Amino acid sequence: MKPTPNSPSKSAHRPPAPERRTPSGPVPKRRRHWPGAGLAGDPLPPVLAFGAHPDDIEFGCGGVVAGEAMAGRAVHLVICSHGEAGSHGTPRQRVAEARRAAALLGAAIEFIALDGDAHLEIRAAHALRLAKIIRRIRPEVILAPSVVENQHPDHGRLGSLVRDASRLARYGGLKALRPRLPHAIGQLLFYAVTPEAEPRDITPVLIDISAPEIVRRWTAAMRAHASQTSAREYVELQLARARLLGMRAGVDHAAALFPNEPLVFGSLAQTRRGARRF
Amino acid sequence: MKPTPNSPSKSAHRPPAPERRTPSGPVPKRRRHWPGAGLAGDPLPPVLAFGAHPDDIEFGCGGVVAGEAMAGRAVHLVICSHGEAGSHGTPRQRVAEARRAAALLGAAIEFIALDGDAHLEIRAAHALRLAKIIRRIRPEVILAPSVVENQHPDHGRLGSLVRDASRLARYGGLKALRPRLPHAIGQLLFYAVTPEAEPRDITPVLIDISAPEIVRRWTAAMRAHASQTSAREYVELQLARARLLGMRAGVDHAAALFPNEPLVFGSLAQTRRGARRF
Amino acid sequence: MKPTPNSPSKSAHRPPAPERRTPSGPVPKRRRHWPGAGLAGDPLPPVLAFGAHPDDIEFGCGGVVAGEAMAGRAVHLVICSHGEAGSHGTPRQRVAEARRAAALLGAAIEFIALDGDAHLEIRAAHALRLAKIIRRIRPEVILAPSVVENQHPDHGRLGSLVRDASRLARYGGLKALRPRLPHAIGQLLFYAVTPEAEPRDITPVLIDISAPEIVRRWTAAMRAHASQTSAREYVELQLARARLLGMRAGVDHAAALFPNEPLVFGSLAQTRRGARRF
Amino acid sequence: MKPTPNSPSKSAHRPPAPERRTPSGPVPKRRRHWPGAGLAGDPLPPVLAFGAHPDDIEFGCGGVVAGEAMAGRAVHLVICSHGEAGSHGTPRQRVAEARRAAALLGAAIEFIALDGDAHLEIRAAHALRLAKIIRRIRPEVILAPSVVENQHPDHGRLGSLVRDASRLARYGGLKALRPRLPHAIGQLLFYAVTPEAEPRDITPVLIDISAPEIVRRWTAAMRAHASQTSAREYVELQLARARLLGMRAGVDHAAALFPNEPLVFGSLAQTRRGARRF
Amino acid sequence: MKPTPNSPSKSAHRPPAPERRTPSGPVPKRRRHWPGAGLAGDPLPPVLAFGAHPDDIEFGCGGVVAGEAMAGRAVHLVICSHGEAGSHGTPRQRVAEARRAAALLGAAIEFIALDGDAHLEIRAAHALRLAKIIRRIRPEVILAPSVVENQHPDHGRLGSLVRDASRLARYGGLKALRPRLPHAIGQLLFYAVTPEAEPRDITPVLIDISAPEIVRRWTAAMRAHASQTSAREYVELQLARARLLGMRAGVDHAAALFPNEPLVFGSLAQTRRGARRF
Amino acid sequence: MKPTPNSPSKSAHRPPAPERRTPSGPVPKRRRHWPGAGLAGDPLPPVLAFGAHPDDIEFGCGGVVAGEAMAGRAVHLVICSHGEAGSHGTPRQRVAEARRAAALLGAAIEFIALDGDAHLEIRAAHALRLAKIIRRIRPEVILAPSVVENQHPDHGRLGSLVRDASRLARYGGLKALRPRLPHAIGQLLFYAVTPEAEPRDITPVLIDISAPEIVRRWTAAMRAHASQTSAREYVELQLARARLLGMRAGVDHAAALFPNEPLVFGSLAQTRRGARRF
Repeated sequence: MKPTPNSPSKSAHRPPAPERRTPSGPVPKRRRHWPGAGLAGDPLPPVLAFGAHPDDIEFGCGGVVAGEAMAGRAVHLVICSHGEAGSHGTPRQRVAEARRAAALLGAAIEFIALDGDAHLEIRAAHALRLAKIIRRIRPEVILAPSVVENQHPDHGRLGSLVRDASRLARYGGLKALRPRLPHAIGQLLFYAVTPEAEPRDITPVLIDISAPEIVRRWTAAMRAHASQTSAREYVELQLARARLLGMRAGVDHAAALFPNEPLVFGSLAQTRRGARRF
Repeated sequence: MKPTPNSPSKSAHRPPAPERRTPSGPVPKRRRHWPGAGLAGDPLPPVLAFGAHPDDIEFGCGGVVAGEAMAGRAVHLVICSHGEAGSHGTPRQRVAEARRAAALLGAAIEFIALDGDAHLEIRAAHALRLAKIIRRIRPEVILAPSVVENQHPDHGRLGSLVRDASRLARYGGLKALRPRLPHAIGQLLFYAVTPEAEPRDITPVLIDISAPEIVRRWTAAMRAHASQTSAREYVELQLARARLLGMRAGVDHAAALFPNEPLVFGSLAQTRRGARRF
Repeated sequence: MKPTPNSPSKSAHRPPAPERRTPSGPVPKRRRHWPGAGLAGDPLPPVLAFGAHPDDIEFGCGGVVAGEAMAGRAVHLVICSHGEAGSHGTPRQRVAEARRAAALLGAAIEFIALDGDAHLEIRAAHALRLAKIIRRIRPEVILAPSVVENQHPDHGRLGSLVRDASRLARYGGLKALRPRLPHAIGQLLFYAVTPEAEPRDITPVLIDISAPEIVRRWTAAMRAHASQTSAREYVELQLARARLLGMRAGVDHAAALFPNEPLVFGSLAQTRRGARRF
Repeated sequence: MKPTPNSPSKSAHRPPAPERRTPSGPVPKRRRHWPGAGLAGDPLPPVLAFGAHPDDIEFGCGGVVAGEAMAGRAVHLVICSHGEAGSHGTPRQRVAEARRAAALLGAAIEFIALDGDAHLEIRAAHALRLAKIIRRIRPEVILAPSVVENQHPDHGRLGSLVRDASRLARYGGLKALRPRLPHAIGQLLFYAVTPEAEPRDITPVLIDISAPEIVRRWTAAMRAHASQTSAREYVELQLARARLLGMRAGVDHAAALFPNEPLVFGSLAQTRRGARRF
Repeated sequence: MKPTPNSPSKSAHRPPAPERRTPSGPVPKRRRHWPGAGLAGDPLPPVLAFGAHPDDIEFGCGGVVAGEAMAGRAVHLVICSHGEAGSHGTPRQRVAEARRAAALLGAAIEFIALDGDAHLEIRAAHALRLAKIIRRIRPEVILAPSVVENQHPDHGRLGSLVRDASRLARYGGLKALRPRLPHAIGQLLFYAVTPEAEPRDITPVLIDISAPEIVRRWTAAMRAHASQTSAREYVELQLARARLLGMRAGVDHAAALFPNEPLVFGSLAQTRRGARRF
Repeated sequence: MKPTPNSPSKSAHRPPAPERRTPSGPVPKRRRHWPGAGLAGDPLPPVLAFGAHPDDIEFGCGGVVAGEAMAGRAVHLVICSHGEAGSHGTPRQRVAEARRAAALLGAAIEFIALDGDAHLEIRAAHALRLAKIIRRIRPEVILAPSVVENQHPDHGRLGSLVRDASRLARYGGLKALRPRLPHAIGQLLFYAVTPEAEPRDITPVLIDISAPEIVRRWTAAMRAHASQTSAREYVELQLARARLLGMRAGVDHAAALFPNEPLVFGSLAQTRRGARRF
């Protein structure tokens, strides 16, 4: 089976005009009406982030989400359980914490039920369900937990399901996905909820999240998960990690993301910042 | 031993103003006077490319060089032998071919002698000599053959020497490098002269070299090495490779480069094109 | 649980007489009656190839299939969906295209239904079903899509299922597989539908498919999938890939296959051709 | 979802007193009543070993089990099928062989049914079931087959399920695991039933099993699986492997285990024996 | 060429009595007279640490050195340059800083000259020189910078030279090493001066360095390198890294070391602490 | 620099006639006069094996050498030191042992001096010297120690030098190699003196060395190195390793070799034996 290369959505996102010459060219009209976009007239296509549990996105890539939202981009969070298997916090509390955190990050949020916390399985039906969401939100970039298997089983499985879903979303013949039009995303980036979940076989990219307001919002969003952070040092863990990556990148704080596909650039200008501080 | 983080050259290249907000901000004055820059008033810092033999750069990353030069950036080629061990072509012929190819690509070229073709060894003196060139040209981006060992021995060794040189260039205490000021490059990107030399442990970036004029100049530059291409299918090999990578990237032709350091970005916008066509 | 090492089928395939001395020794009688063999009196055990969709085998290893069939070996294709999720082509069209392509390649073909296109899951029942087919066809060599996960989800999963099935086929106690006798294959080789699906942790073998008639039949078989190739450059992609591998191998065209198990040889004579052209 | 760091069981196993100073400190009272412990007053927390088939543990890490039992530690074996798909031996015979082998090794044994021999699938319900066993036995160390996929499918899947289960066992909110208290194990070590199943991405640890009585008991336990060893050289395989590893380690026989997590030590004293004989 | 397995020094370090039973057995008399031992009657064989520059050991594994010294073990530091190529600090200053740092860590220190800072090359003569030092100090454990090539070139090369030297030290026929007796070390552990230098193909071990006095001494030793730390955040980098590894290991601070050889243990007891906190 | 593709020697080894059809076709006349060939009229091109020390080839791949010689192929051994750094045996003894072992294996032997035992360095002059030997012997297959770095330093370095030499041998412009004609080998295969030296990133091929006479001759050749084997279990180590690999391959004994380049085959027939016994 092969994808739909010339679907309307795709041609909208990747206009045939070469990027080299028109990186800031006119924005196709339809881009202005992304569902869920936070700002009227926003020219940036949305970011879609998936989390297995109510706090995964915040701990794994909350600084990136905050930065994108602050730059005026719509960010849509999809949480795939209520965190009901956690040692602390009721599902009700955890959902409330996640809603508050999303508000602090400037992101929209929705909850879906797959198999339940700690019960996630790899099922084609799940991938199709996530693909439907992708067709609805029509993101340019997707964030998902890494597919590393030696972590919470829900994390790696959700990463796999999102990867599959991002392919299925652009296949034209899938009846289960109709009537939404096929959609080809631009890139899938994995985040790691903890350092152990960082894939060893993908070179990361580092995102500069040093702006004080980004750090402030991100920290607040993590702390919003009070049921998880009262007894543990999760906030400190993530800030130390961002600081360490930041020192490597020559900035104050940075986040590591792992692209599922090689990056495509129009020139060397986009490769010119390397994390070369030591 | 530790680098000079606050050297003048480095602060010039990485201004403290956050990239997120001022990607097209005012160019520091001193950038206008890059030695070897081809165009007066060129705001882009130069690219420096190293090759072990007269045709390595053309075959390994000639399309990228052509594209950068066409975009108005100074590109400086340094060739580290006269190709005197090759099966075909005299050193004199090969140097002339390389000069002609460089002209076709729009790049400056110089030749240096290290240990001679097929005789290159890893020596600290070589790395220091290359570091001096780096301090003189003061490039933002360096291109070098990959450090993969299972290829022509000169290729992998030159890659290693350039990697070392790019560190040494920013260390302040090296008497051998005086009086030139320390210089911190932004990124070192490896190219692979043949597919076998592509590193398996670095995720590549793909550079779009589809513009017909780029392909035309690149092809002409490869063909300028007539002594090497008359009996062999090198030009076809490289064009097929670029076409294959292009199909992967969703463009006509692409080149693969392998960053020595993780890329640092100001936002997700720079990651949004993934090679996701299959 | 352990395999049946001395099962009749296995001793037929791997006679105790050392290969070193009798590579062309007398063929056991029962080999002459392979089900599905195309030619009467064919002494070569059949090749069995699995594809997830109607065109996967043609695009991934069609040249190898053509070459084997031309050499007089029975090749049996098993397609595990009707390609009903593709962007182009109805299931009916796609099945017809696959039948025509198989005829062009000189291979037998059958279709089975597992979970449906884009719905394949890892289920023990699927592996057992494939194992039954293996016991029926009794191949020496099996071709299957690679188990790389970052590709169409059906591809990697089918590769996993075939790998499991090739083990289960030789276990004597499996009631679900009776009454067919256990069968031990000689080798499982993975093909990659696109370059991205090539496993990075297995050294490939390259099969010379340069004979013009092989290339002609293979190209025709790919073009038989008219619904898939009209809007896309799949045929060009595969031919460019074969040409690139061919240049590496020192021949006109080559295909890369990835053995699931180390190859066993009787002497160094079988290792003497290395892809050493650059 | 996050674990229960301060659960009673965990604090029992990892007392806050630094290991550096009190490696042989007083044993918490509750450790004396491990379920299934073979010896009254045993201060060592039990070892729990999982096998997919009746003979996997014996062939894969039987020497280690024998050594631990001889050192006075309770070892509990959980076998997840009756080996009903094997080429030789009825399920009844195989269960009897496993019971006898466990007795020879000095270990307790129990059988559970998941999906049946050669039918094991990755299901959240299985991981939860194994987690319940972990909460019941409350082991410090778990042994499980490696997660390498290119082996008997049941082996790799059971390894994955045990890895997941060892995480789930410490999550406080899982209703399916109540009323047993959460339990955090100290380490999960993978064994390889055959050399091919050894993970290539984990540095092994080698366990010295040279004591003649260990080798004797282990050999006897392997031979107790008479239905599997009569027609095959499994015992010889494992002894040759242990001898080879032993020569590497500078002892008579050794077993390789693959830790799922980095080892944590109080000082360099515990790292001082390296396998440095060649 | 093969090592001397039964040399006196080796049999002293690895007594034939099985470790399982006599981990705290009587210490051979000659162990009491290690050259450079800090404490009379010290039964622990010394640790030998190599650094390419005056501050590498402190930044890369200073916490481990402090912990070992506090536990009464002699630690001997060998620094292979005066740091004369650094951007800051004169050689004289840097040597003085290193001496002071060693005193704070409780370690002996010596300086040797190889090729000079930023000039180190791989030479057999260097490896033999380091092997002589190994025969003189007769350590059980050696610490050296990792052999990762993408770091300061002196670091990776010194790691390689130390690895070679630790082999040469036990070969009996090397005239250049006489009259010192051959010596077989127990283990070589690599440290990483910065996170980028951590080898990706070796599973680390984590050493608990949480004791407040260890952290205090280590921090003081890093700060003793005032010429290097005034303009840079090296101390913060290392403390953040240790904190992050500590959170992973479930302790306050930890250091990662990378064993060159698989660890050999007498039982599972030594494997029971895994870094399993997330 | 590029190779000489159409050199006389190469066209002799790789005739344009497709292997698929004429695997046993007429042998070019000049093949009958290989220097050093043991048998008059021998149609097989010679095998060239390099060893760093007098016993490396015997321990690392002696069974393969014995098998090739018994099959009538000339095998030429080149030993690059006198083993003067070994713990046991004088250089004179060791050379005599190696000569006797070569005679037992049926191979010619010569000794060359590079830098001396335990002193080998990577020098272009060494690679050129080895390339001269390659041009003189004109082998089809070369055997060399693996390039793994964590083994005796001479081993890995010799492997690197031989790999470079096998490229240099076919470059036409190297004055240092004249007047011998360029020669392109078919394949370079690495052997591992001990299991630790087996490369992890190359899939091995297994050579069946089960014939009793092969094992007998190989064992005798290893035992001929009496100075090395009296105090150590090297012979047992290698036989256990060959037995283990043999069980994996389904034969009595096997040797693992690691091809430097992908194997090229004319059809699937040559891939049909996989090591699939477990």
